[in-house]
Amino acid sequence: MLGFVVVAVVGALGFAAINFYGVKRMDTGTELMQEIAGAIQDGADAFIRHEYRLILGIAVLIAILLGVVVSWYTGIAFILGAFMSASAGWIGMRIATLANVRVSNKARETSSLGQTLQVAFRGGSVMGLAVGGFALLGLGIVYVVFGRILGQTDPSRLLIEVNWLGINYIPFTMTVSGYALGCSVIAMFDRVGGGIYTKAADMGADLVGKTEAHIPEDDPRNPATIADNVGDNVGDVAGLGADLLESYVGSLISSVVLTAYMFFTTSQAAQPLSGALATKLINFPLMFASIGIVASIIGIMTLLVKKASDRPHRELNVATWVAAGLTLVGTGVLTWFMFSGETFPAVLGFSLGPLSPWIAAVLGIVSGIIIGQLAEYFTSYDFKPTQGIAAASRQGTALTITQGLAIGMKSTFYPILMLALAVVGANAIAGLYGVAMAAIGMLSFVVATVSVDTYGPIADNAGGISEMSKLDPKVREITDELDSVGNTTAAIGKGFAIGSAALAALSLFASYLYSQFGAGDTSVSVSDLLLNMINPMTLAGGLVGAALPYLFSGILIEAVAKAARKMVDEVRRQFQADPKILTGESKPDYRLCIQISSEGSLKEMKVPALIAVLTPLVTGFLLGPQFVGGLLIGTTLSAIMLALFTANAGGAWDNGKKYIEHGHHGGKGSEAHAAGVVGDTVGDPLKDTVGPSLDILIKIMAVVSLIAVSIFQRYNLLELFR
Amino acid sequence: MLGFVVVAVVGALGFAAINFYGVKRMDTGTELMQEIAGAIQDGADAFIRHEYRLILGIAVLIAILLGVVVSWYTGIAFILGAFMSASAGWIGMRIATLANVRVSNKARETSSLGQTLQVAFRGGSVMGLAVGGFALLGLGIVYVVFGRILGQTDPSRLLIEVNWLGINYIPFTMTVSGYALGCSVIAMFDRVGGGIYTKAADMGADLVGKTEAHIPEDDPRNPATIADNVGDNVGDVAGLGADLLESYVGSLISSVVLTAYMFFTTSQAAQPLSGALATKLINFPLMFASIGIVASIIGIMTLLVKKASDRPHRELNVATWVAAGLTLVGTGVLTWFMFSGETFPAVLGFSLGPLSPWIAAVLGIVSGIIIGQLAEYFTSYDFKPTQGIAAASRQGTALTITQGLAIGMKSTFYPILMLALAVVGANAIAGLYGVAMAAIGMLSFVVATVSVDTYGPIADNAGGISEMSKLDPKVREITDELDSVGNTTAAIGKGFAIGSAALAALSLFASYLYSQFGAGDTSVSVSDLLLNMINPMTLAGGLVGAALPYLFSGILIEAVAKAARKMVDEVRRQFQADPKILTGESKPDYRLCIQISSEGSLKEMKVPALIAVLTPLVTGFLLGPQFVGGLLIGTTLSAIMLALFTANAGGAWDNGKKYIEHGHHGGKGSEAHAAGVVGDTVGDPLKDTVGPSLDILIKIMAVVSLIAVSIFQRYNLLELFR
Repeated sequence: MLGFVVVAVVGALGFAAINFYGVKRMDTGTELMQEIAGAIQDGADAFIRHEYRLILGIAVLIAILLGVVVSWYTGIAFILGAFMSASAGWIGMRIATLANVRVSNKARETSSLGQTLQVAFRGGSVMGLAVGGFALLGLGIVYVVFGRILGQTDPSRLLIEVNWLGINYIPFTMTVSGYALGCSVIAMFDRVGGGIYTKAADMGADLVGKTEAHIPEDDPRNPATIADNVGDNVGDVAGLGADLLESYVGSLISSVVLTAYMFFTTSQAAQPLSGALATKLINFPLMFASIGIVASIIGIMTLLVKKASDRPHRELNVATWVAAGLTLVGTGVLTWFMFSGETFPAVLGFSLGPLSPWIAAVLGIVSGIIIGQLAEYFTSYDFKPTQGIAAASRQGTALTITQGLAIGMKSTFYPILMLALAVVGANAIAGLYGVAMAAIGMLSFVVATVSVDTYGPIADNAGGISEMSKLDPKVREITDELDSVGNTTAAIGKGFAIGSAALAALSLFASYLYSQFGAGDTSVSVSDLLLNMINPMTLAGGLVGAALPYLFSGILIEAVAKAARKMVDEVRRQFQADPKILTGESKPDYRLCIQISSEGSLKEMKVPALIAVLTPLVTGFLLGPQFVGGLLIGTTLSAIMLALFTANAGGAWDNGKKYIEHGHHGGKGSEAHAAGVVGDTVGDPLKDTVGPSLDILIKIMAVVSLIAVSIFQRYNLLELFR
Repeated sequence: MLGFVVVAVVGALGFAAINFYGVKRMDTGTELMQEIAGAIQDGADAFIRHEYRLILGIAVLIAILLGVVVSWYTGIAFILGAFMSASAGWIGMRIATLANVRVSNKARETSSLGQTLQVAFRGGSVMGLAVGGFALLGLGIVYVVFGRILGQTDPSRLLIEVNWLGINYIPFTMTVSGYALGCSVIAMFDRVGGGIYTKAADMGADLVGKTEAHIPEDDPRNPATIADNVGDNVGDVAGLGADLLESYVGSLISSVVLTAYMFFTTSQAAQPLSGALATKLINFPLMFASIGIVASIIGIMTLLVKKASDRPHRELNVATWVAAGLTLVGTGVLTWFMFSGETFPAVLGFSLGPLSPWIAAVLGIVSGIIIGQLAEYFTSYDFKPTQGIAAASRQGTALTITQGLAIGMKSTFYPILMLALAVVGANAIAGLYGVAMAAIGMLSFVVATVSVDTYGPIADNAGGISEMSKLDPKVREITDELDSVGNTTAAIGKGFAIGSAALAALSLFASYLYSQFGAGDTSVSVSDLLLNMINPMTLAGGLVGAALPYLFSGILIEAVAKAARKMVDEVRRQFQADPKILTGESKPDYRLCIQISSEGSLKEMKVPALIAVLTPLVTGFLLGPQFVGGLLIGTTLSAIMLALFTANAGGAWDNGKKYIEHGHHGGKGSEAHAAGVVGDTVGDPLKDTVGPSLDILIKIMAVVSLIAVSIFQRYNLLELFR
């Protein structure tokens, strides 16, 4: 197994380094370009530094707590996960701020769409490769150090141990959960912090710039414009990277934990899961992921090594499909070699023989692609829903908003049907392990999808720099085209992110239920897993759980709005204090705006992030595991819905505005356009702050509950009164 | 028992008739007033006629289906329920269109706040009394004819019977469920149809009138203004009446069905529920409700019979509190007399002795009041959240919307906590029967709360008539004050509506689970009730169920927006075709606007209403009871959240705008006001169409599932393939 992981990690991080320095070596263009890029870089750098310093304190606290209450290795694994996640985010931010100006310059020098695409994608690939590489590096260390050297994956140790507090747990499940929690906590802070930062700046810039002063986006006269560009890097790039790393790790460990519990609970059963097979099932996800990484490297290469082509859409698709196709073939072969000839105990529910887990993964991939296509249908202006929003804008802002809300709500139904099918199908094919595999399948070529996802914001930022540096409008046209292509391809990535979050949460949730069987219940089977919703405690948990994502989202939106309002006041103040800013004669003070975004997000990100971590703990210790079980189900159902709703409504508003800007319903400057801009602004925090954070919320809560359940099962207030 | 019901029904309907003719006898003012009121009346009348004709066909179809597939008496009971609900809606609409002009005239003649209040409240009380009277009249007939004469409530018949399709059910549960379904289906059509009508007209009128032409609300120059006023009557009055009648009946029958199942399932147990006690538990809710009606009559009288006072807020509160207080005392005495000396089998879970069900009801009332107060906190401009929306409006429309969304989302958390407490508490005190009693408690003085709820729209409409009839502005001031007082008091009513819907759905849901025990399982106990969320079918059902309210809401919002856009186009067309309309020299064509609202709503109301009825049926016959169980839980959790979110966001936007109009942030005509108007317009369909319809959705789905479960348990596609 180790061979696979080493090849993948070395390949990914090595290729990332090559691309990083490859980009860094390129020319950075005119002096003005360098100056602006430098300002963006400094702003991003300063923010990430502040942010990480703040997170460091919280992370160390959590690690100590985990180390004391659960076990020392859980604490260490947590730190490791946090470090990997933070590194991926940091590298992503670094490369994005380096690449943007170089992309802009390449477009300026060559006027070639294809060559510019290659620079932008090279930059994006660094983030993609870092996500895969760091995730697997950390997990590899966990497997080698804790699994092999300390023997936690040895079948003789995949059993319940008791710590000094009298709490029972299976050591390796706590180690990998600690690792995943580390990734999740960092991702939550990165996503929430970056999301508040970027949207406060974006909204602030748009509200005064576009709506009041009627100056275009990225106009250097707008004091908030640098902050807006900094935001793209810390939010859309660093936030996204940490987010997907977290999803990736979450889905991988969910299958591992599940296997450990199945091994333990069936150990006395008539048909036990054998130690040898359990070891295989624990190693399998990592090998699966390694193949996906190697396949993604090849996919990325198809775009980077050959001659530049002027058809970016096709190029990106080829890269993604090569990665996906090779992953499918490679993992199919892997699965066959690993499992053919095995006999599978009934507990696994492998109904289609040795290829069962692979087929479940394929099912996940297919449903993820369909979910992505559905998102594309509802949010691209090539289709009726978004065009409908644009058309509604003719009758005023209120109908733009109303229509967008309606589309967002309706758009949730079809992806949920797909997800329901995936759950039922994967479970029928390969049991609960199959559900975890469906999530892993979706994310197996994450390196390729993140590369594509990241390349978009880089191109977007490059466009901003060309605008601010007053380059030839042709440069902006090139970056704009690249950006818009990126948006389309990114839809698939979003489908994977939401779908895999739901599936991973569900299989973590199954492990949560398993963990309630103590050392005495060694003969339980899968059918004994139970979360009875009609139990009043569970039902109450379900109610509170369903409300939690709303509270969380409300707080997030308010945080963005608060910072955005300060930004608006500041921009208005500058315009008033110095009328020469708007004529272009004097330079606005960008720093003050950067400061507002930065301070706002650092201040506001703590509460929502802590809600995610603390709610299952607090309610668990007060009301016990039944309540938390309901809480998890309620949160998962409610958060998936809100995530889909906010992502699609936001995307549709954004593209509805763009559709108008392309000359429909009066085009730029029309009443309809003004309404469209409001829709876009309303959608911004929904799609870029709330939606992605909700994906993390459900996994954080599931992992925290899983780690803590053996504690609050024994120690809770309700138990005390009994 | 019969005595109680007869007194309550005769009292309620008699008092309603007295008040109806009392209002009708009053003066109708100037000729112009009569003309305008006549136009509103004709429009409302024509719409209700159309609507009822359309519903009649669907209702007869459902009745025949129920009669054939389940049993003839289920079909008859369904028709009876539909008739009662339709009658209440129709009477409400009639009295509202009669009272509005008389309220306006009373204000014109006397300039007395108190005397005007009395007329408006007398009108509102007709609706309240009709809701209580008709609901109980129909239920009384069901009890007497089917229960007593046909012997269905006789303990010897509270057992499973088998129909010609080989389907098992307890006869009386099917009869009362059929009755409740009749009420629910009509309520759904009334709410959805009326909701689309009123909000299409309201939005259309506002969008062009306030935002473009800058003429005030209810200005006679606006062609959509009569349609808007018609909408208030068919939506806010008739829709609300049918809605609350449905909630009332739903909560009453949920306890009855539950009792029947508990009786049946424990009949072979060590501690059976005795036939005598079961009969008491079946009769108890009706007697409880009767006392609530009598108490409400007394409460209403406190306002109507004494000398008019100029403190409307106090008067309305006194009426409500007298009704609530007398209900509490009366039902406490009733409970003691009925249950003291009884021994309660464990299945009931009466942990506080004979008063247990009463204490559960009190818990329901208290939590309902708190939920209402929370809604008041989040939506009244006396408090920070709504003031925050008003303040955000200074920075433009986008922030008004964003802030409203944030407040709406955050506001859901606290009422859900209360609801969770009510579930756990009521269950701890009096088992699942206690949960049903909590819902009944909330609605026990529904006659008083509906009277208050209805009086608001009547006063609002009266204001519209005074405006259009160009009466002294002082008249408008009086009606405006009455309207605003109504809004505050109505908050409690909304809390009861949402809270009781959730609790009633949950206890219906428990009955659904009970019904899965066939004739062979007569020894099951409550703890055997099971809905295992980790079962993949159930989980898939939960996912689809959570998405359903979003689909439903999206379709509703889109329907409103579609009709509103047609309205905008028509109003714009009239203003352009005849510029003299805006100068007041020629009269706009009101009829065309009425037609747009009417046709739009009749056309668009079918799909959402049918989704509610058909989804549990279709999925049940395809995927079986496990899926539908998950579906119900998913829908209930998701719909409660959306209902709270839409109601509170909409209310907060509405009052945020009013706060600005009262002179804050620049007052009327300011930029902030324009933003506030957009917020109000966006909120309109959310709070008045979507929110209330969701309350009905969860109960319709629960009742349909309950009726159909014994059929699709036996006959479903999945079963076929097994």
